[in-house]
Amino acid sequence: MDFIIDRDSFLQALTRVSGFVERKAQNGSILSSVLLQADGAVLRYTGTDKALTLFGSVPATVKVPGEIAVDAGYLLNTVKSLSGATVTCTLGDQQRLEVRSGNSVFRLVGQPGAEFPVTPPLDQSRSLRIAADALARVLDQTLFSIAPDDNRYGLNGAHFEEVTGTDGTALLRVVATDGNRLSWSQAPFSGELAIGRKSLVPRKGLAEVRRLVEGMKGEVEIAFGERAAVVRLDDCTVHMRLLEADFPDYRQVLPTTFKRRASVERAELQEALKRVLIFATDISRSVKFAFTEDALTLTSRKLDAGESREEVQTELHGEPITMGFNGRFLQEVLGVLGSTRVLLELGDTLSPCLVKDPGSPDALFVVMPVRLD
Amino acid sequence: MDFIIDRDSFLQALTRVSGFVERKAQNGSILSSVLLQADGAVLRYTGTDKALTLFGSVPATVKVPGEIAVDAGYLLNTVKSLSGATVTCTLGDQQRLEVRSGNSVFRLVGQPGAEFPVTPPLDQSRSLRIAADALARVLDQTLFSIAPDDNRYGLNGAHFEEVTGTDGTALLRVVATDGNRLSWSQAPFSGELAIGRKSLVPRKGLAEVRRLVEGMKGEVEIAFGERAAVVRLDDCTVHMRLLEADFPDYRQVLPTTFKRRASVERAELQEALKRVLIFATDISRSVKFAFTEDALTLTSRKLDAGESREEVQTELHGEPITMGFNGRFLQEVLGVLGSTRVLLELGDTLSPCLVKDPGSPDALFVVMPVRLD
Repeated sequence: MDFIIDRDSFLQALTRVSGFVERKAQNGSILSSVLLQADGAVLRYTGTDKALTLFGSVPATVKVPGEIAVDAGYLLNTVKSLSGATVTCTLGDQQRLEVRSGNSVFRLVGQPGAEFPVTPPLDQSRSLRIAADALARVLDQTLFSIAPDDNRYGLNGAHFEEVTGTDGTALLRVVATDGNRLSWSQAPFSGELAIGRKSLVPRKGLAEVRRLVEGMKGEVEIAFGERAAVVRLDDCTVHMRLLEADFPDYRQVLPTTFKRRASVERAELQEALKRVLIFATDISRSVKFAFTEDALTLTSRKLDAGESREEVQTELHGEPITMGFNGRFLQEVLGVLGSTRVLLELGDTLSPCLVKDPGSPDALFVVMPVRLD
Repeated sequence: MDFIIDRDSFLQALTRVSGFVERKAQNGSILSSVLLQADGAVLRYTGTDKALTLFGSVPATVKVPGEIAVDAGYLLNTVKSLSGATVTCTLGDQQRLEVRSGNSVFRLVGQPGAEFPVTPPLDQSRSLRIAADALARVLDQTLFSIAPDDNRYGLNGAHFEEVTGTDGTALLRVVATDGNRLSWSQAPFSGELAIGRKSLVPRKGLAEVRRLVEGMKGEVEIAFGERAAVVRLDDCTVHMRLLEADFPDYRQVLPTTFKRRASVERAELQEALKRVLIFATDISRSVKFAFTEDALTLTSRKLDAGESREEVQTELHGEPITMGFNGRFLQEVLGVLGSTRVLLELGDTLSPCLVKDPGSPDALFVVMPVRLD
């Protein structure tokens, strides 16, 4: 193997792959490696932790085709440290990959490409296409609600489904919940969403997809197989093994009516929450929300430390009410809404709260209240 | 106590003080507090961990004088979260400090000012004055050589002394070593350096002084007492308890002759070191330095991972030699030198290496070699 490659493109590829390789792998484990395959006019690269795989390619001047697996972290640090415009890579004796640029020569210990684990191809030809910026929004509005604990069976991923918009448009809806809050977000797509046995996509893969679509123009292709889903971008493909668990029937927990509706300015509520959270340091980050006709008063208190009180202008329809919420959860919802105002739809003291952008039906957030002392 | 204060000045004061209070203090301990004293037209603030104290003052509109000690971290977060131009602080019942700005009201649990530990005044009237930017340089060139372990008796601080420049100028010299490397740096001063029993100043205090003089114009005053030293800036004073240990006789370890002298471009050597350090991952970060007449070749190797080789142009006077150094130590020295080229003065394979700016006699660095395998 012998190829010359643009340093910046190689660095971008290796930076991408670093999120996909097994970080906890033993030193020298093949799962901490990136597979490099030079052939034709491209360098193909693959990184996997077995559940999640990235396939990509970068243009390269290939003199001698070949393949090698080398430690992804060391190769990333090596290429990052180089300042020349191009990098030359040559496979030498004993599976050593020689990396040269200017006066610098590195020799990385490699393993034969044949030892690199094979990711099975997707058993599905049908797929959908969605605008990359719409997918970015949908993921931003849902990923934070996925349970952070991988042992939360059924809640450790996001559920994908197709819904029909009020005007008949086909929409891809992504739903996530950790049991205390839920969010869904949707966007139009073309093509076909053909879900197989399972529809629960693990958090880590979606977080990497979110990184890859950052700033991207154009469309992304998504296909579901029986056991895996793939997301295809211009120059790379993410293969994600689906979770075996079933997502709960989330429609059951969505309130269909409300007794009170409060409208507040989003930025004002965000600022106020930031301040009351200083003294909301218990596990549930509880903040007292007192809604009156024209004001929402937020208070928090930490014994032996202090307390905080904020007042935010509001328009309340319905009876005044005082209830508790995890302030951090509300803050995260406000952070992924783009609107000037938000609507809070409330029931009774212990009923879930719906948070909405009044101008857009494309996302919905549910936050369960907490009991106040 | 009741005062109005500019929000940004208050925030700057509390940010400064946060480096001085005891971080490991039990929640509610007085040592994690800042003492606020409002009187006349100023708010005075004090933070201490008993060994290190910051005294400062900020202009304030004081309506009712008074004092209170409140948790420094909570007060910092509170003031940081406020967006108004001014902040009003009022001492209420039960030692509660009410902090108000706009629609925000905080009440912080305080402790009586009388419970705050008293730092004894300095028993010394003689002092020196030094340009703030010169002190910043001297500290930058020495602090990194102090032993990071507080149990390294005699090496866990920097030694201060007066030396006379070749033109007869009085110079303040600061010296630090961790046993494997040493640096000294000096600058002219006016007034008098009257060292008492001890001259070893702890690392933490000097690091905080370095932060305080960042970007500062004008002069700084330094005085040594029997057990403490103080550094006086425009609007604050740092009081540091001196270390009881004695600094080693560092002149004994400074080589007075050399057999070889190599001149290299500083930035080129820095870049090369950055790259070879990728595979220099043993404890001593060992890098092989092979000096020939016109080239310095750096190599490093990590078993089972790879190796790196760099070549840097050099002018060597003396016989070629190959020896090992901790690459990180050399890198840190190069990072605090401002010159285009550096001189490396060498003896034999296991003799210390002197690193110098060829154009300035104001700093000297010694790095001990490491044995190569």
